[in-house]
Amino acid sequence: MKIEDKLAAKHLKLPDPPKQRGKLRPAIRVGQVVRTSGHTSELTGKVGKDVTVEQGYAAARETILKCLMAVKAVTGDLDKVKRVIHVLGLVNAAEGFTQMPQVIHGATDLLIELWGEDAGWHTRSAIGVYQLPGNAAVEIELTVEAE
Amino acid sequence: MKIEDKLAAKHLKLPDPPKQRGKLRPAIRVGQVVRTSGHTSELTGKVGKDVTVEQGYAAARETILKCLMAVKAVTGDLDKVKRVIHVLGLVNAAEGFTQMPQVIHGATDLLIELWGEDAGWHTRSAIGVYQLPGNAAVEIELTVEAE
Amino acid sequence: MKIEDKLAAKHLKLPDPPKQRGKLRPAIRVGQVVRTSGHTSELTGKVGKDVTVEQGYAAARETILKCLMAVKAVTGDLDKVKRVIHVLGLVNAAEGFTQMPQVIHGATDLLIELWGEDAGWHTRSAIGVYQLPGNAAVEIELTVEAE
Repeated sequence: MKIEDKLAAKHLKLPDPPKQRGKLRPAIRVGQVVRTSGHTSELTGKVGKDVTVEQGYAAARETILKCLMAVKAVTGDLDKVKRVIHVLGLVNAAEGFTQMPQVIHGATDLLIELWGEDAGWHTRSAIGVYQLPGNAAVEIELTVEAE
Repeated sequence: MKIEDKLAAKHLKLPDPPKQRGKLRPAIRVGQVVRTSGHTSELTGKVGKDVTVEQGYAAARETILKCLMAVKAVTGDLDKVKRVIHVLGLVNAAEGFTQMPQVIHGATDLLIELWGEDAGWHTRSAIGVYQLPGNAAVEIELTVEAE
Repeated sequence: MKIEDKLAAKHLKLPDPPKQRGKLRPAIRVGQVVRTSGHTSELTGKVGKDVTVEQGYAAARETILKCLMAVKAVTGDLDKVKRVIHVLGLVNAAEGFTQMPQVIHGATDLLIELWGEDAGWHTRSAIGVYQLPGNAAVEIELTVEAE
């Protein structure tokens, strides 16, 4: 099944192509590797205080869709993605909150649902940062290998 | 115009070649890709408290010059840079400060002034971190593609 | 001398192969480049408050061994590593603590002891982050070039 059909079957829709955010590219390709800018969730607030783990998980799932749209803007088609390489997952953490992995799983789980274990399993760093742009709850940078 | 002539026309000067900082390389090349270490601003303090957005912007502009010097140390000449790939912009953020993009624009704007939109537009993540080495206001890691 | 013999001479032992951490890969190879996930120290707590610089240094040294085990899981043999490329060093920093470089030197020093200056010197960013998964003191992501 095509990746966008899989998304449709989950009632998920790629967001609109990311606006050229000022002078930034949503994603860039170097050889076979496509890496996105850091994309932020619509949901704002500190996870562990304003935002629950479950809400953070949903925000990570929403944010990885923005990253996928950014990849598509470069590759033309998500079916050109051969495998997922790396997720940098940044969580706007409340003091003492350390469940960053449980939040970023929202992105990881969707990538594996879409590409399967062989192509979908990736390396990752999940970090609790002090502040994110616009007080976003989550920011994610995605790296994939593409044809 | 050559990149260093453009810098001179702006009355900007590359800093001295970065000191071998202990055991670290200022930048390293893998194939066509050159990535720098994280370079820190001379300006210290937390942006949003000790340091204004405008001062942070100027610090980011100064710091990207250090990154460019590091790139030059590897390529021999900044005119070997074909395009800018990625900026990781770390801001030493005060509590509640979320205007990281406005700070890191200091680096982004200069890169675009030097390489133009086609080659200068890049991907970026701007993050508010809790602490930077020596309490620097800004730390930046630059990735470019070079001949 | 082989890398694992050098480790043995220092009475250091690679940890057991990292558990498949849920859906994450310990490391992944793209062409000649192997990059690990972020690996965390067993030691927990905030450096500069719960944890001293010296304890943080030891934790970074321990953590880079986990990264090396992850590299070995991909390359089959640490002697396949041609050079060290990059260390992303994340320190769980207490308020006002800015000696991240002195902590991450624990990783950098061991890499240079193992591969020597030519192949061991690398680029690095050392950052003080707000929270790490499970309140780990240190998290490190390693990138190397391999045959």
